[in-house]
Amino acid sequence: MSDDTVGGDLAAEAEDAGEQAPASRDALRLDQLRQAASAAGVDAVVLTPAATMTWLLGHEFEAHERLFLLIVPTSDAAVAVVPALEEANFRGAAPSVESLHLWDDADGPEKAAADAFKCLAKASRVAVEPLSLRYMEFGHVQRELPKAKIESAENVVAALRLKKSDEEAALMKRASKIAEAALEFTLRDVKPGRKEVEIASKLSSELLRRGGGGISFGPIVLSGPKSALPHGVPDDREMQEGEFLLIDFGTSFDGYHCDITRTFVVSGSPTDRMREVYEAVLQANIRGVAASRPGVTYDYVHKNCQANLHGPRFKEFMTHRTGHGLGLEIHEPPSVMAGNGGLVEEGAVFTIEPGLYLNGWGGVRIEDNIRVTEQGCELLTSSPRELRILGA
Amino acid sequence: MSDDTVGGDLAAEAEDAGEQAPASRDALRLDQLRQAASAAGVDAVVLTPAATMTWLLGHEFEAHERLFLLIVPTSDAAVAVVPALEEANFRGAAPSVESLHLWDDADGPEKAAADAFKCLAKASRVAVEPLSLRYMEFGHVQRELPKAKIESAENVVAALRLKKSDEEAALMKRASKIAEAALEFTLRDVKPGRKEVEIASKLSSELLRRGGGGISFGPIVLSGPKSALPHGVPDDREMQEGEFLLIDFGTSFDGYHCDITRTFVVSGSPTDRMREVYEAVLQANIRGVAASRPGVTYDYVHKNCQANLHGPRFKEFMTHRTGHGLGLEIHEPPSVMAGNGGLVEEGAVFTIEPGLYLNGWGGVRIEDNIRVTEQGCELLTSSPRELRILGA
Repeated sequence: MSDDTVGGDLAAEAEDAGEQAPASRDALRLDQLRQAASAAGVDAVVLTPAATMTWLLGHEFEAHERLFLLIVPTSDAAVAVVPALEEANFRGAAPSVESLHLWDDADGPEKAAADAFKCLAKASRVAVEPLSLRYMEFGHVQRELPKAKIESAENVVAALRLKKSDEEAALMKRASKIAEAALEFTLRDVKPGRKEVEIASKLSSELLRRGGGGISFGPIVLSGPKSALPHGVPDDREMQEGEFLLIDFGTSFDGYHCDITRTFVVSGSPTDRMREVYEAVLQANIRGVAASRPGVTYDYVHKNCQANLHGPRFKEFMTHRTGHGLGLEIHEPPSVMAGNGGLVEEGAVFTIEPGLYLNGWGGVRIEDNIRVTEQGCELLTSSPRELRILGA
Repeated sequence: MSDDTVGGDLAAEAEDAGEQAPASRDALRLDQLRQAASAAGVDAVVLTPAATMTWLLGHEFEAHERLFLLIVPTSDAAVAVVPALEEANFRGAAPSVESLHLWDDADGPEKAAADAFKCLAKASRVAVEPLSLRYMEFGHVQRELPKAKIESAENVVAALRLKKSDEEAALMKRASKIAEAALEFTLRDVKPGRKEVEIASKLSSELLRRGGGGISFGPIVLSGPKSALPHGVPDDREMQEGEFLLIDFGTSFDGYHCDITRTFVVSGSPTDRMREVYEAVLQANIRGVAASRPGVTYDYVHKNCQANLHGPRFKEFMTHRTGHGLGLEIHEPPSVMAGNGGLVEEGAVFTIEPGLYLNGWGGVRIEDNIRVTEQGCELLTSSPRELRILGA
């Protein structure tokens, strides 16, 4: 798995920053985090091994049972609590972090944590990531900083990671290319009688064989009435002629993900109702992409996308939010949904994935990934969108 | 991915429990959890989508950004907070849980959480899992139960999940068989000049093609001096003749994992020192397996395993704990390490994975999975252990 270095070369950023000597990637991004945290009024951000640490260090560390913390005070050098086994990887990824508090299994992490948190003795507001900090790590934060107010770093971090550079977008396009080639190859196997799990397993294997950095999730392969389950799980069900086949899947390249859904018909011919539902979702997808540009709200994108999905022709169908951000994570801010008054910004990458689902009948979802440009947006995904009949 | 049903049929357990009508799997296991939690003196256990929920429900739900909680009072019916998108999956997996508090993206989870936690209005001690409950979920627990003492459910849960049934062991053996076949097939490609990432990618793809339920981690494929990095990451390094090649990998079957390491030599012939180090680790592996039986301590297993790894011949080498439990997770209790005075119990499954590593020179690790039997233990892994020279 090529998940060692993530997001590539930051030389251009270093030059933009006007540094005398080129600063290391981690130093540049730690400075960005410090500035954002300082502007938000917090004294420090405490990170665990998760996407934001990957964004900072260009190396994907995993959260295991051992305490591993990166403590970033806004007005002081970063400090880390690192399991001894990870020392070499951490030093390689974070050359600018000089203060490492190492611990091994024989001694446990308590002393390392106590020493590391001394740098926050005077901190009154400390931000953490609600979706990655676990109760295990929170226990250490609480014990060492009993008087500090713990708050969410979500907005600080989301703003930093929201806008994807050309280089990050290129990685996401590369992930999409791998995913789409794996899908095309896998689709050759689709025919009546094939099991959902067979197609899922083949697709997974192809994603990796073609250089994908992992199976981002599932994949979700659902046939017939099961295509109506937005979070359904593939099983031994055999697909039948004339049914919908919904495939939602993704992979990554250098840590950056794609997330694609296409819905097909398994040989035979679809009913008029199937064609009508498909066409409505396709038009919603197209309208969602067309509505995405800087300055409009996410609510606007959502409503433009789904305007025709709530009419009388589909009143018994269920739908869901239009999309979500993606990058180093499959799901990250923003949420493209009703009521989100946040403004779409240039560089943001998110999914447009309208769907219509009728319990017991079936469902259609068509999901693409877009990056907002100066005037509108560019598609990072390119798999055909028109209704395709497979294994015909 | 066949991760829909996990751990199979519990009919035998139902019969053992002497039920009149056969209870559902979730009802049986929820009762086991209630009894264990009650014995530990807590009023409830609050679970998020992670291995223990999988163990309870036989279905693997994933932790995303949406609030998803299973609240298990010791003396009352279980209650759940479930994202609307997961309703069908949850009802299918948890037929005995009648009180569902559903929420959708438009409304947010606050009201569902507030309603669900009413059942714990009088609770004074609530247990959570420190390695899976996140700060996001903890925030809801804290807000709804401001007076309750929050403590760790780790011991309660570990004791329940520690002993693997014959059926669970069979799933782990099946995962091992898939993994070992994938390894053998992949090893045919090993020769000088091959990149670590090429072997890692091929192995991943083979694990899935042969029916593995996923790539449990990594895989870790390290050559030459890099084999000295217990947590190293494969990259474009080309393996050279006569070097060590360390491969640490795993897959799952119906949710249950295997975790295997083998160290090879890439064609040519190893030096005497390489042979000596390999032989020492192999003997440690054999001694570790031989020492594992009910009634001894994990410290005893560790010391027997590693007795000869700390002598003068290897004094400059680094080593680590002997192993860790595995099952629905790659790393779960027990920790087979110095100082762990816990007693080995029949049914426990853990790794025996001694290693010797010398920075800049290379390392050897040989890892097997064992299940403790009445008299000793059985190996769940069967890949050859003697030193093999590949691509010769």
